[in-house]
Amino acid sequence: MLRHIALSTALCEGVWLGYGAFMAERIWTAALAVIGDEILSGRTQDKNVQQIAVWLNAQGIRLAEVRIVPDRTDAIVEAVNILRGRNDYLFTTGGIGPTHDDITVDAIAAALGVGVIVHPEARAMLELHYATRGGLTEARLRMARVPDGAELIANRMSGAPGIRIGNIFILAGVPAITAGMLDALTGTLEGGAPMVARTIGCWVAESEVADILREIERDQDGVAIGSYPFFREGRVGANFVIRATRQSNVDACTEQLVQALRKAGYDPADGGI
Amino acid sequence: MLRHIALSTALCEGVWLGYGAFMAERIWTAALAVIGDEILSGRTQDKNVQQIAVWLNAQGIRLAEVRIVPDRTDAIVEAVNILRGRNDYLFTTGGIGPTHDDITVDAIAAALGVGVIVHPEARAMLELHYATRGGLTEARLRMARVPDGAELIANRMSGAPGIRIGNIFILAGVPAITAGMLDALTGTLEGGAPMVARTIGCWVAESEVADILREIERDQDGVAIGSYPFFREGRVGANFVIRATRQSNVDACTEQLVQALRKAGYDPADGGI
Repeated sequence: MLRHIALSTALCEGVWLGYGAFMAERIWTAALAVIGDEILSGRTQDKNVQQIAVWLNAQGIRLAEVRIVPDRTDAIVEAVNILRGRNDYLFTTGGIGPTHDDITVDAIAAALGVGVIVHPEARAMLELHYATRGGLTEARLRMARVPDGAELIANRMSGAPGIRIGNIFILAGVPAITAGMLDALTGTLEGGAPMVARTIGCWVAESEVADILREIERDQDGVAIGSYPFFREGRVGANFVIRATRQSNVDACTEQLVQALRKAGYDPADGGI
Repeated sequence: MLRHIALSTALCEGVWLGYGAFMAERIWTAALAVIGDEILSGRTQDKNVQQIAVWLNAQGIRLAEVRIVPDRTDAIVEAVNILRGRNDYLFTTGGIGPTHDDITVDAIAAALGVGVIVHPEARAMLELHYATRGGLTEARLRMARVPDGAELIANRMSGAPGIRIGNIFILAGVPAITAGMLDALTGTLEGGAPMVARTIGCWVAESEVADILREIERDQDGVAIGSYPFFREGRVGANFVIRATRQSNVDACTEQLVQALRKAGYDPADGGI
């Protein structure tokens, strides 16, 4: 497991990190706060956790934790303050539209102890966007409100921009708009080496090979193996995902796992089943 | 908004609740801890938040908050202890299989300060299940381990049961198995009145009607209106979801909203768009 790096290399090249461990390489982490009653009520299937996780990994940043909180100031403030404090970055999705249930900007400003201002550039963007759409009403102007000191994140889909303040990135909740904002941020955040993953699939009950997995993970420093069982066509199988920041570690671990599975009489498939 | 009930009826029939408010009716809440690196890495799209939210609502219990945490003891312990303390129920998904990355039982036992035992009934279930599948290996026996004092939750899909200890319900991560365990729990938990919801859809930018929504929500005690914009076929629209525990409140609010939208020149569709 990744924590093993900490123990084995702390003395030679350790860099201080969170979670009380010395690590051989700096791991950049992000948290995500998904803000919205519609996720907690079950009305809406969240898609932002996955899309942000995948995007972060490409930036060399690991999604370390997620909280889904209701449209309530105290809940947002609590999540924002703990998550921004212990991660390199905090992303939020949801609650930045023009309606009464969009309270993210006010709640984050409250969390930071700053006021809320109308951002002149956001106001200009919205004026332009709504020039042919009925003009900038008071409700629409709400979307130009930002915590004092914030910068804007371009929204390539609709009028209202995302917002960056400190290490907090305030994004839209509608996944297609979120995606556009992530696109605008691509390559702008400092990160480490992206995680590399390789999947080996096998028609086997994971309980049959649990010992094999445990031993190999113990052998292979810096590598994590996840085991994901499935039930398909009346048969049980599992995909084993080998993850590390170094391709050579992933490849060595994969090779060892494939050989061990073959030796045990199974027929592992590269790329998963 | 629901909090308005608190203010208007606290003096006549208040019952103490969390979040520092008196409420007219007891609201039962649950939290969910989704445990699994595969969700945080983006490999797997979570489906349990939505299915558990919908199921809870049918039990008269509201999903109040969700945390997604990695397969790491300290992260699980932190989430479990805060969430179980401030909600009526805590559900967890994931990490109860036979492999090295399945650490949920140990982490929850650690959170509760109890030991881990092999549950005799779970052991018997697994012996029966694996009698024709190669026998009960040591790895498989891991799935009979429970925090000391726990009861079992029937698993109608595969061998390993879910686990209940105190107000914590430890469920599988594979959504179909989770569903079976929820089914086994249906009707067994104490709850209040389920939330009732009605949706009104409209081809309108939500910013056009933000004032209407705000005013109606302010008028209608005990009702929450969510506004969910969408972009389809090159047009903007929004669905407005009216939620309350009383059908009569939902209906009165819906009626007021439909009339206000018509008056403003729109054509609201019952059931949403």
